[in-house]
Parts: sequence; C-alpha cells; structure tokens
Amino acid sequence: MDNLTLLTDLYQLTMLNGYFENKVYEDTVVFDMFFRENACNGGYTIICGIEQLVEYVDNLKFTDSDIDYLRSLDKFSDGFLDFLRDFKFTGDIYAVEEGTVMFPGEPLITVKAPLYQAQFIETALLNIINFQSLIATKASRICRASDGDSVAEFGLRRAQGAYAGTYGARAAVIGGCDSTSNVLAGKMFDLPVSGTQAHSWIQKFDTELESFKAYAKIYPDSCLLLVDTYNVLESGVPNAIKVFKELRKNGHEPLGIRIDSGDLVELSKAAEMMLEEAGFKNLSIVASDSLDEYAISSLKEKGAKINSWGVGTRLITSADSPSLGGVYKLAATTQNGELIPKIKVSENPDKINNPGYKKVVRAYDEDGIAVEDFILLHDEIVDKLAFSILRNSAENCDLSTNKVSKNYTFRDLLKPLYIEGVSKYKKKTIIELKNNVKWELSSILDKYKRLYNPSEYNVRLSESLKELKDSLVGSKSK
Amino acid sequence: MDNLTLLTDLYQLTMLNGYFENKVYEDTVVFDMFFRENACNGGYTIICGIEQLVEYVDNLKFTDSDIDYLRSLDKFSDGFLDFLRDFKFTGDIYAVEEGTVMFPGEPLITVKAPLYQAQFIETALLNIINFQSLIATKASRICRASDGDSVAEFGLRRAQGAYAGTYGARAAVIGGCDSTSNVLAGKMFDLPVSGTQAHSWIQKFDTELESFKAYAKIYPDSCLLLVDTYNVLESGVPNAIKVFKELRKNGHEPLGIRIDSGDLVELSKAAEMMLEEAGFKNLSIVASDSLDEYAISSLKEKGAKINSWGVGTRLITSADSPSLGGVYKLAATTQNGELIPKIKVSENPDKINNPGYKKVVRAYDEDGIAVEDFILLHDEIVDKLAFSILRNSAENCDLSTNKVSKNYTFRDLLKPLYIEGVSKYKKKTIIELKNNVKWELSSILDKYKRLYNPSEYNVRLSESLKELKDSLVGSKSK
Repeated sequence: MDNLTLLTDLYQLTMLNGYFENKVYEDTVVFDMFFRENACNGGYTIICGIEQLVEYVDNLKFTDSDIDYLRSLDKFSDGFLDFLRDFKFTGDIYAVEEGTVMFPGEPLITVKAPLYQAQFIETALLNIINFQSLIATKASRICRASDGDSVAEFGLRRAQGAYAGTYGARAAVIGGCDSTSNVLAGKMFDLPVSGTQAHSWIQKFDTELESFKAYAKIYPDSCLLLVDTYNVLESGVPNAIKVFKELRKNGHEPLGIRIDSGDLVELSKAAEMMLEEAGFKNLSIVASDSLDEYAISSLKEKGAKINSWGVGTRLITSADSPSLGGVYKLAATTQNGELIPKIKVSENPDKINNPGYKKVVRAYDEDGIAVEDFILLHDEIVDKLAFSILRNSAENCDLSTNKVSKNYTFRDLLKPLYIEGVSKYKKKTIIELKNNVKWELSSILDKYKRLYNPSEYNVRLSESLKELKDSLVGSKSK
Repeated sequence: MDNLTLLTDLYQLTMLNGYFENKVYEDTVVFDMFFRENACNGGYTIICGIEQLVEYVDNLKFTDSDIDYLRSLDKFSDGFLDFLRDFKFTGDIYAVEEGTVMFPGEPLITVKAPLYQAQFIETALLNIINFQSLIATKASRICRASDGDSVAEFGLRRAQGAYAGTYGARAAVIGGCDSTSNVLAGKMFDLPVSGTQAHSWIQKFDTELESFKAYAKIYPDSCLLLVDTYNVLESGVPNAIKVFKELRKNGHEPLGIRIDSGDLVELSKAAEMMLEEAGFKNLSIVASDSLDEYAISSLKEKGAKINSWGVGTRLITSADSPSLGGVYKLAATTQNGELIPKIKVSENPDKINNPGYKKVVRAYDEDGIAVEDFILLHDEIVDKLAFSILRNSAENCDLSTNKVSKNYTFRDLLKPLYIEGVSKYKKKTIIELKNNVKWELSSILDKYKRLYNPSEYNVRLSESLKELKDSLVGSKSK
C-alpha cells in the first residue's frame, strides 16, 4: 500500500475519461475542502494530515501495473490511459497550516488546477485530512478534559486497521497526547512511546507479587505496576507497595500503578491513600478503562485520584462520532476561457456552497484572541477601519461590552502549499506541530471549546462574496 | 507501511524483554481471541481478515532499522535485541475460516506457541481481525436490510485512513456488498468496482442536459445519471429521460438514475413513475445519502422505489458502533514443564475468561441449521447421543417444538492455520469468501440476525470446561 495513486473512487476516473474525451480536462477549476459540522460534536476542529497530503501529491504516479488494471476494467480509452502515464500535479494548493483550528464552512484547502488534476485528488485528499483531523480534535478534547494530566494513546488493537492505528497515533500526539503505545508510529513519526505490562504478564507468574518483583528487577527506574488482575485493594496495591519499598531501599523511585477495571473513583481514592500511608506520594495513578473526554471529565468531578490516563478505543476511532464529514466542492470553473464562480443549489440552504476563488482571514484582538473569521474572495482585503466599526457596532448592539475600538490584527489562514505544482511545504517536527495546536487553542475562547453545548464561533462572508452567492442562487432558481 | 512488525504496543516488547531476562520466554502458552459483544449491536459477527493475519505472521521480521529504533528507546538489553533479529513464528494457530459466523465468548483464534511469540502477535492480530470483522458484519446487516437489492460500498473519503478504506472495502464485499468505489481495493483484491459521476461533473457543463449528454456519449451502455444537482423532479429526471430516449434511439439501454439528497421516498416514487411513463421500466434507482441498515430498512417500509444502494460513511466506519471489542487472553501457560489452564478473575463474572486449550463445535440439525455451539477442551469430543438427549429434553422443556430426535451433525470451527510455524492457509478468492458468508448466514436462524433485539444464540460450555473454570475461580478467590 505504498503507492496510493489508485486510492480513489472509480467515478473520478470515469469523469476524467469524460473530461479528456470532451477536451475540457485542462480547464482551470477551483475546488474547496470544507466541513459543515465540527468533528466530535464539538465547537472547533483541528486540521491535521497536511504532511501526508503532500506525500500523496508528490508521489502521484500511475505505474504500468495500475494502467494494466484500469485497462482491464474496459471503461477507458487507450488514449486516456496513455495520458495518465504522465499524470502529475501542476496546479496551486492553498491550505491551512497543520494544527490550525477551523470552523464549519471555511475552506481549509483550496485547489486551483487543471480540471483533471483537481478532480482526481479529491478522494485521497478527503480520506487523509478527514481522518487525521478527526483524531487530532478528539485527542485535544480528551486532553482538555484531563486538565493537564498526562494522556497516553493506546487504541491500536481496536483502531480501524494499521493505518488508522499509526497515523491516528500521530494525530493524537499532535492533538495533545503525551505518548502512544504504537511502536511503529513511534518509529515513523518520532513520537514518544509508552507501555509497561499487561494482565498476561501478571498471570504468567505463580503469584502477583512474583510478577511485580520480576518487572521491577528489569525496569527499576520506570516501574509502573498493573494492580487489578486479582483484587486492586486486597492484593494489587499491597503487593505493589512491597515492591516499591524494596525498590526504594535499593535507591530507585517507583513510577506508580495502573487500574484497568472496576470503580475507578473508589479504587483510585483508596489506592492513593494506601500509597501515601506507605510513604509514596505523588506517584502516577493511571486509569485505562473505556475512557473518553466525557468519562474523564465525570471521573474528575467525582474526585477520582487519577493523574494519568490511558485512552484507547474511544480516542483512536473517535467512537461517538467516527468521521469528519469534510467535502470537496467545485467553486469555480473555466467557461469560454474565463474562470467563473460555481454553486450547487440545494433544497437545504445550509448545503449551498460558497462560490468563487476564496480565502479565509482570522481577526485577533489586542490580547491575541480570535474574534471572528471572514471568508472573502481571493483578491479582497479585510479593511481594518471597516472591521473596527463593524465590531464596535456589533459590540454596542448586544450591550455585552463597552470596550472602545481595539487594534485588531488579521491573519490569512490559507498558505501556499503548492504553486504551479512546486511544493512550498516545510516539514515540521511533531513538537512544532504540537506547539502549533497549543497556540491555536490558546487563541480560542473557552466558550467555543466546551465539551457540552459550545458557542458557535462567528464566520462571516464578505459583502462581495455574499452578493456573488445571492446572485448565483437567484440565477439558478429561475 | 509494508513491514508491520513494529505494529504493536510497546508493552508487548517490554514484557518480551522481561520474559527473556527471566528465561521463561520459550514456555508454551495458549492465548484465545474472542469478543464479549457482537459487532454492530447485532446478534452475530462475521469473522474476516484471516488472509491478512497470515500475511502478517509470514512477514514478521525485525529489520536492522527496527532494531536500531528499539535500541534508541533505551529499554532493552543488547542480548534481547539480538534475539529479536531471528524472531519468527514457530507455533500453532487454530482459527475459524474467513467468513465464519461467530458468537460472544467463543475462541475464534487460538494461539499455542512459545510465550514470546504468542504474546508479541497480540496487537496486530487484534487490529487486523477486529476491523475487518466489524466491517464484514456491518456490510452483511446492510445487505440484509436491502433485501436482495444491489449494494455498493463507497465510503473511502470518510474511511479512517487508506488501510481502512481499502481493507474495509474487501471486508464489505466479502460481507455482502456487490462492489466498491475504491479502485485500489479493486486492484488489490480483485473486487468489482463501480461509479459514474459526481455533482462536479454536472456543474462543469453549462447545463445539466449537456452534462448528461456528454456522459451518455462516453458511456452509452452503462449510463447512470445523477439527477439531484439542481432539482430532481423538475430538471434531473426530465433531462435524464431526454438522454435515455436518445440512447434508446441509437440502440443503447440506459442503466438508471442516482438520487443523493432530499426526500428519498417521495423523490424515488415520483421518479419511477416519470421513468415508467416515458417507457423506462425497471431501471436502477440508486440512493446514496447517509445510509445504513436502519435507514434502508425504514425507506423500504415507507415504500421508497429504490432498488440499488450506495452506502458510504456509515458502512466503512460502522458509524454507530465503530469497533469490535475483540480481546486476546492467556488461557494456559507452562509451569514446571506442564501446560496448565489460566484464568483472570474479575469482579464482573462476564469478564472471567474460559481457561485451557479449547475448541469450538457447532451442532447442525438435519436441515443444516445451526442449533447451538459448544466450547470444549481441546481433546474432548461431542457425544452425539448425549447431545441428542440434551436437545430433546430442552426442546420438550420449552414446548416450542415436538420434533423427535434429530440426526445432528457437528463441525469443528477452529481449523489449523499454522502447525509448528508452517502455514496451512489456502488462499481463497473473494467469490469463495462471499459464498462462505452466504452459506454461513443461511445456516443461522433469522431470529439471531434481526436488526433490532436479536435472540441470543446459545453457546454452551462442556461439563469438563465448566468444572475446570469453577475450580479455578474457586482457587483464585480464596
């Protein structure tokens, strides 16, 4: 699965064949990727997977074997199949930086390219960005709920296949997790890896105590013991304490314990007390049983004495909302040699896309807090004065504030990723991407980040874009 | 991502290192894979992914680069890392055939191997089998709801990454789908691929009619038109009919139409009537908007005139239940040179695993209908006479039947996949695997396959296994 060129829907190729036969395949078009609802039923979405998108575009190549396979489908002309041999991306892509927080309706990626190229990359682009953005967002929600505690991703065994486990681990760490259990992901992306022992280790030995001693002997300076194989409070914790005392006598400090089942509130409270009484303060107490942001938040509210979280299935699959519905829509096309805006009219007004070649600008106040976003036509600029007036009037209007005119700053969110087929992408380290997410989240007010019922962040269309959209809707509905 | 050897949780390697240092790594052990709840909240689970499990086991190999990476983690002895260089699987694996229907608590895969090997393969084994079994089961439920209509999988853009899209397509077709849109999956697994055109094709042309004509010209014998870009009944269907008449005049028969939005019941009824009035009977009317088994079942109940279904996100992610919780538990281990059964006691009795080296036998009645399953110790046999008596007594007891003694047949579900490291696997074609699923489902009564509130299929422990389990629970709780 290293060559992902055929990772596409068949209809992309039947359409390409049609465009080719109709000789419109080289027409310049614009497609936008955007989503209509945030990931994870939340108030924001973290965009992730840009690096993999670049790898995909750079490696696009129909091999002889791909061409032979397509020929066997008996749907494509020989001329078209020959044409595919030289397929490469030669257009422009503007995209947000990896880790950017985005909101419904905003273009995250805008592709301006010859029709056959822009159309063809749709499926893989969506596949890559939808999944990693979903998991990065889920991870950020879980880490917010854990409120500064350490969070380890360990969902590989329930991930939707090898790629989901591995690229999902990347997205989870970028989104906020401290580590992953996935060794392959650790190697591929230089992620911190973590893990100690499973129940089978404990069971392999005649007694729990023996198993703990054996583990402590091998890992005296990173000794974290799984205490729920038999009975947490009657056996696990007392045995762990025996081993921890032994370790300390020999000059090592233990790391802590892990509880994987049972009443995590009661067990963690009692375990912490037992550990403290035995002289072990501030150890890690790790919990790892069917956790997500809601479970963690509830456990914290109930006073669980857990300070480290191992999160599996519900993170790596985003179990309660397992897809981000990113779409890729035609926004402009060439007709009679001219790039003209396009729209798809729908009976549902929320589904009418924003036409034209566009950009997105985010306004920040003097404290660096994001105030609202604008979708504009590509050659428009945000007028600072007009914006100030608009904001002040809005603020006066709702009477919720009486601040005087602020000194707003503006940031273009869509940056060149490809210009005429040449990649402008600069690879970032995972640390840089994590920091990017942290910075992005710190610029968004808490009300948009709430687990339950977040406020809706304001995304405004420019007057010109609104006029364009209205005029196209009007002409279509005639 | 071709070498999946490091596709594992770090704790597998820290445990292996510990087993190695404790010189117990070569002890023979038995692990079972089983699940506690069926996939998709249903009454049965189709096991899928056995072929990929075999590929994984056959290709296990720690490369120099893997070893260097593991050394960099500073957690493993040099002796252990050298030992890993020669890692290969030398044990036995018994597994159900791909496509077998299984029920909670039953071992699907039993691994009897040296401890370090059996432990190490856990994570990848679960990752592979959990995901494909989930999607095969979801597909079978969707196809059952569609009741003989054609079902196409086209969820790639929302799948959880490239692997999920591609191996998920394989599982979906095995589970019952007729085709996939995923071209890479089509090539890799020889799956039927399908697809026509998207809204962007329609929008690229000045008018809908032009776009339809252009498509019909290229694909006169497989012309299926997307009719909801502007207005299904006022524009899409009338334009399609014009093009279909033109096609017929030129000696071609159209395939049909696709509706991707709106009220699918009303639109499909009206569209069918318009098509029939124009002389086009029995065309395909494809629907493709957020479908799953529940939506399809409800549309059918409401009389929608849809006879072909395109199913995306909710199939490829199994959206309402996006993981199968398969686990892999130690069932026996060597102590003092002898293989002895093991158990993990839990406060939740449902979580106590079945100890020992086991097998699973399914009993069929004279009509080839599965009656119930037995989990037995590996050297036990099902006694036909005893079973007949048992069944008759049970049947008399519930008074639901008054059949006389039947001639039951018995089938061992776990077949050798590896014996002493040698693969016994015979690769099957997708058609064979699909047929296997069909046959399996036909042998299971409808009450276990219902969408809502299915009956629970009976899985019985043999008397010997029950006694063994009770004795181990007793001894642990002392």
